[in-house]
Amino acid sequence: MKKSCGNLIIIGGAEDKEKECEILKEVVKRSGRKKGDFIVLTAATEEPDEVGALYRKTFSRLNLKDIKIIDIKNRADANREDYNRQVQESRCIFFTGGDQLKITSLIGGTAIYTSLKTAYDAGTLIVGTSAGASCLSSTMIVSGIDDESPRKCTIKMAPGLDILRGILIDQHFAQRGRIGRLLNAVAQNPEILGIGIDENTAVSIEESTEFKVLGSGAVTVVDGSSISHTNVSELSPDETLAITDIKLHILPKGYRYDIENRITLHEKKEEGNKNEDN
Amino acid sequence: MKKSCGNLIIIGGAEDKEKECEILKEVVKRSGRKKGDFIVLTAATEEPDEVGALYRKTFSRLNLKDIKIIDIKNRADANREDYNRQVQESRCIFFTGGDQLKITSLIGGTAIYTSLKTAYDAGTLIVGTSAGASCLSSTMIVSGIDDESPRKCTIKMAPGLDILRGILIDQHFAQRGRIGRLLNAVAQNPEILGIGIDENTAVSIEESTEFKVLGSGAVTVVDGSSISHTNVSELSPDETLAITDIKLHILPKGYRYDIENRITLHEKKEEGNKNEDN
Repeated sequence: MKKSCGNLIIIGGAEDKEKECEILKEVVKRSGRKKGDFIVLTAATEEPDEVGALYRKTFSRLNLKDIKIIDIKNRADANREDYNRQVQESRCIFFTGGDQLKITSLIGGTAIYTSLKTAYDAGTLIVGTSAGASCLSSTMIVSGIDDESPRKCTIKMAPGLDILRGILIDQHFAQRGRIGRLLNAVAQNPEILGIGIDENTAVSIEESTEFKVLGSGAVTVVDGSSISHTNVSELSPDETLAITDIKLHILPKGYRYDIENRITLHEKKEEGNKNEDN
Repeated sequence: MKKSCGNLIIIGGAEDKEKECEILKEVVKRSGRKKGDFIVLTAATEEPDEVGALYRKTFSRLNLKDIKIIDIKNRADANREDYNRQVQESRCIFFTGGDQLKITSLIGGTAIYTSLKTAYDAGTLIVGTSAGASCLSSTMIVSGIDDESPRKCTIKMAPGLDILRGILIDQHFAQRGRIGRLLNAVAQNPEILGIGIDENTAVSIEESTEFKVLGSGAVTVVDGSSISHTNVSELSPDETLAITDIKLHILPKGYRYDIENRITLHEKKEEGNKNEDN
């Protein structure tokens, strides 16, 4: 049996910061379950001051006045004693967007990475949006070609923060036409579940093996376990892949998915049981 | 049992006209199996002279010197005796790109429509690219939102030329991020098979219930027969759809698909039989 996840809200980027703020309100609410700092970690972005100020203003409007912004500028920062103590004792760590490789190359192998894992295991809510979402998985997508069918060697992947295992996250999903690159990634190892999150849409996990969808778009689940054939290991670079019998789910707000058993929970409801949503 | 199709080459738009011309060479080759005119039908486009000249030049380079260009400017043209005779006696009818509604609104219910069906039943090769591809199905997608997850009422459909039954074609597929709109269409009636064709990619059918993929991109098959749940009939306009357990195939050049039995033919090969490709 796979280990249950901790507390996660994984956002597909471009979350509403001005109107309903459905997702960020949920972040505020969920972060209140534990004591400690609410940390916004701006390591991913080239504009940490602007991004930090935007989140400070946005969360302030949502009655969260005391956020701490930590900008990791270099690997020395990621070993700073004060940052580490704050991360260990935090109630929420929010990874902003930017470049996922900036996050992992600055944080990987440092004290703050260990502190992050310790905090997560102790119940701290980990939130990531856009690049901050991608980096949470064991292997992350770094780049690929949007609006294209999957072709061999057109996707770059790298080791992620390993917070969310067995899952590959993609973000800005429908808006940037990324089904091809997620299929490409999943075909390379169909053990991995592919989760494509639209803008202003999020996957929320509360210490379980299920996620629930929040926000205005859809979450696309690519389940490769049913793949009957792929030629991914046979092709030359740039050749278009063959992948047959992929299982796909499009899940809007309120829908749940059981990661461990790879089933949408609406099915369970129709089979006469537990799920109260929809 | 579904009726076998006739001779069709359905192109996802932007087919190579300058380099290898793989798809257009196949069109020329296949059209040679019957006597009669090779007709380019420019009804879809607002620039029939330019488009006609381009195909005349392109096919000429492929040693097809005698194409006839028929431009249907209005419904009176679609009832012209000379055009009708040419269509009835043709060996190939090639629908160019443009606007699929222009094709159906000009041709539907006219003599040329009847002649087209007669020719198709008699073995004439029907080719369509882009809008000319979309119009071939019984119901066609007219418009939708690219690069977006499926939302209720965001796709427009209309009756097509009814040449290809039980199938919904979408074109410029990966390049314009159209998986969302094809899923949207299929969810509305999963009896229909969704076929998304990339640019410079085609589906070729030779009097059978199987198609084969040609060209540089992929054909995405959306098989909705496995859909276990959709809320398409319950939502308000603009709400994001839920669709679970969609079966998806990504098929590059050389791969075949059995439309009647909804299986990729590579599977058959692995089960020890007939298909010689790949």
